[in-house]
Amino acid sequence: MSYRNRVDVYEVFDVRFPTSTTLLGSDAMNPDPDYSAAYLRMATSDGDVGNGLVFTIGRGNDVQCAAIEALRPLLVDFDVDRLECDPGSLARHLLADSQFRWLGPEKGVMHMAIGAVVNAGWDLLARRANLPLWKLLATMPAAALLTSVDFRYISDALTYDEALDILTARLDGRDDRIDELDRVGYPAYTTAPGWLGYSDELLVQLATEAVADGFRQIKLKVGSNLNDDVRRVRRARLAVGPDIGIALDANQRWGVAEAIAWTNALSDFDVAWIEEPTSPDDLVGHAAIARGVAPIAVATGEHCHNPIMFKQLLQLEGADVIQIDATRVGGVGELIATLLLAEKFGKRVCPHAGGVGLCEMVQHLSFFDYAAVSASMDGRMIEWVDSLHDNFLAPASVVNGRYLAPVHAGFSTEMHGSSIADYLYSAATTSGTGARSVATP
Amino acid sequence: MSYRNRVDVYEVFDVRFPTSTTLLGSDAMNPDPDYSAAYLRMATSDGDVGNGLVFTIGRGNDVQCAAIEALRPLLVDFDVDRLECDPGSLARHLLADSQFRWLGPEKGVMHMAIGAVVNAGWDLLARRANLPLWKLLATMPAAALLTSVDFRYISDALTYDEALDILTARLDGRDDRIDELDRVGYPAYTTAPGWLGYSDELLVQLATEAVADGFRQIKLKVGSNLNDDVRRVRRARLAVGPDIGIALDANQRWGVAEAIAWTNALSDFDVAWIEEPTSPDDLVGHAAIARGVAPIAVATGEHCHNPIMFKQLLQLEGADVIQIDATRVGGVGELIATLLLAEKFGKRVCPHAGGVGLCEMVQHLSFFDYAAVSASMDGRMIEWVDSLHDNFLAPASVVNGRYLAPVHAGFSTEMHGSSIADYLYSAATTSGTGARSVATP
Repeated sequence: MSYRNRVDVYEVFDVRFPTSTTLLGSDAMNPDPDYSAAYLRMATSDGDVGNGLVFTIGRGNDVQCAAIEALRPLLVDFDVDRLECDPGSLARHLLADSQFRWLGPEKGVMHMAIGAVVNAGWDLLARRANLPLWKLLATMPAAALLTSVDFRYISDALTYDEALDILTARLDGRDDRIDELDRVGYPAYTTAPGWLGYSDELLVQLATEAVADGFRQIKLKVGSNLNDDVRRVRRARLAVGPDIGIALDANQRWGVAEAIAWTNALSDFDVAWIEEPTSPDDLVGHAAIARGVAPIAVATGEHCHNPIMFKQLLQLEGADVIQIDATRVGGVGELIATLLLAEKFGKRVCPHAGGVGLCEMVQHLSFFDYAAVSASMDGRMIEWVDSLHDNFLAPASVVNGRYLAPVHAGFSTEMHGSSIADYLYSAATTSGTGARSVATP
Repeated sequence: MSYRNRVDVYEVFDVRFPTSTTLLGSDAMNPDPDYSAAYLRMATSDGDVGNGLVFTIGRGNDVQCAAIEALRPLLVDFDVDRLECDPGSLARHLLADSQFRWLGPEKGVMHMAIGAVVNAGWDLLARRANLPLWKLLATMPAAALLTSVDFRYISDALTYDEALDILTARLDGRDDRIDELDRVGYPAYTTAPGWLGYSDELLVQLATEAVADGFRQIKLKVGSNLNDDVRRVRRARLAVGPDIGIALDANQRWGVAEAIAWTNALSDFDVAWIEEPTSPDDLVGHAAIARGVAPIAVATGEHCHNPIMFKQLLQLEGADVIQIDATRVGGVGELIATLLLAEKFGKRVCPHAGGVGLCEMVQHLSFFDYAAVSASMDGRMIEWVDSLHDNFLAPASVVNGRYLAPVHAGFSTEMHGSSIADYLYSAATTSGTGARSVATP
């Protein structure tokens, strides 16, 4: 057998942080999340290292780990050196397994598991290049980059040639934009003030602090009680003044008609967008809501499970703001596909972040987007939640309302070994963090 | 604590049949499936029994089992007696867990796991009533039945009142239709001749036999090679004559433009429908294909992961034939929702079956549909694949091209203990059936 740079180490860790003890992360659909990661550490025979993860909110993180573990045999035959000229090869290899594909297809636990492996591959590749991932993506030849995009199911909206044209046109000024990103970073907005479990007083205090910290937009969770929402949004608006954006997030709480009525009932407060007004699967519903709440913008995407869904969201004009998530889909290639689709349809991308490692990861996509796809920061910003960053070797950092450009080689996915050890979940010994320890006899 | 009829036994089995040794099940996307079941056996403190399963095609069946296993703690607090007057309560209870929900939401491995538990509950309830599930559903008060339908995300297309109106209107003649079903069964079609791995000679032989056996429609897999498809469909048409339906199934092989071109290239052969022409997620794409291949009907749904997707498929006019699958969604309630949606939009339902236990289960939904929802068999039929039925205590049975009415109490989900024991999968001892036993060191 010929030489291969093979995956020798493939370790999966069930890491859970007991965030439900505070109300950080509480919203209308998720009252008590324990922010968790199904975490993958890969190393190769040549000494390459790559890390990936799936963010979950507690129970079921073991199932997510089992799915990543199940993919291990597919790595046996894979030569990691293939990624150099064909970075899409790992995703294609994993997605080509028809038996695993049946469990989605291309959605849910199995697809997110593939995303973790694919993203570990991108981390590895960027480390080899000694570049932060966003710079690797922004400077990679377009033909190599596009090996990572599967056009089969999106070419009715975006062809390979159109994608190539977008990337080629953006070569103009790209290096200047990379310099600019290194100097001034990328806008952030903060969700810190708006968790649903917070008191009005804490909301006002945190909103005021957010403005003092340089943020130009905050986000509030809504959707449990309309009277409460009216009062909370009013108090937030009074606290931040007229020049700061206030986005609202319903976390899928409503049906279509309710979404329209509820959102319009909050329209006096100059709402920046209404986020996840209904099921992420309901693209037709989003289109109806977008028409029904205009000129308020509709935002969604953190639970859109692949580019096929984003394609339709754009075709149906279901959203003005496209919110990619780093670990919901099948890896970086699907995120690139979505950035290109959004550019084709003239929509802005404002990534979902927070959780565990989502800020660290998704920032690379927005930096890449500005450098090489959209060339615009207009109305674009990355969500920022200031928690759990210290668990990462290269934590994301926001200063004066802007993400600083990632400088460390890789995808910023590496977690401290001590964090993994300290928060490693064991059903037998842990209670209250993630799973009930009760078992049916 | 008050008395509960609690779940005392909750056993999950990884059952895999080595079907890849034949080419049964081979199609353009799935060349070598090992038909498998993630199987759940429940029993309660009062002696009630219920069985559920998720059908998979091999690798990953362990992940599916892990997901079912993960739900076990949610059963601790559940009183099974609640199902009597509120049969939707179990599904609501499981879907309300926001941490598990995050892993979909309402799609993929975690949602199918919920479906297995919910369906075990329906099996249990029908056994208690000493009725085959279809008769329980068809004779249950509409208000009780509709506790199992979640209208939140579908009410823009079908309201609770509209669903109630459909069911109420169908009370007229319902008992006669139940008698009719008991007497004459329900139409079937067969996929036996058409697996992609079969030779032309075997195709012709099996197609001829299918007609002799009384089937009025056969189905052929297509999508690997157009010249082969033209030849195979022509030979099939010559074999069965002009009066037998020939449906084609592409198993998601194509993009939108290719689907239209390929299907139209086969239009000389009086095609009954083109099935899964593209990704099951691409509802907008299906609508374009439906327009592009008319008057050939488009069929899809076996991979539609919840009623929200079916709703949009209907709203967008993406399919003429709605193909429900018994284990792809979150259980019987979601199947009832889909039957009601199809009735509202005037489309016929022709369930997907085959695999492991899918014929056994989904027949109950079509029988219920005729008795209590659509009151029509016009153009409707259930897929039939004659394999693996002997592993079930109450195997589905097709005679002269028609499913016989299920007569045994329950959902026909109970597998023989000997089958479970004989085909229980163990990664350590088995090779070739489902998972590669190779491990990365």
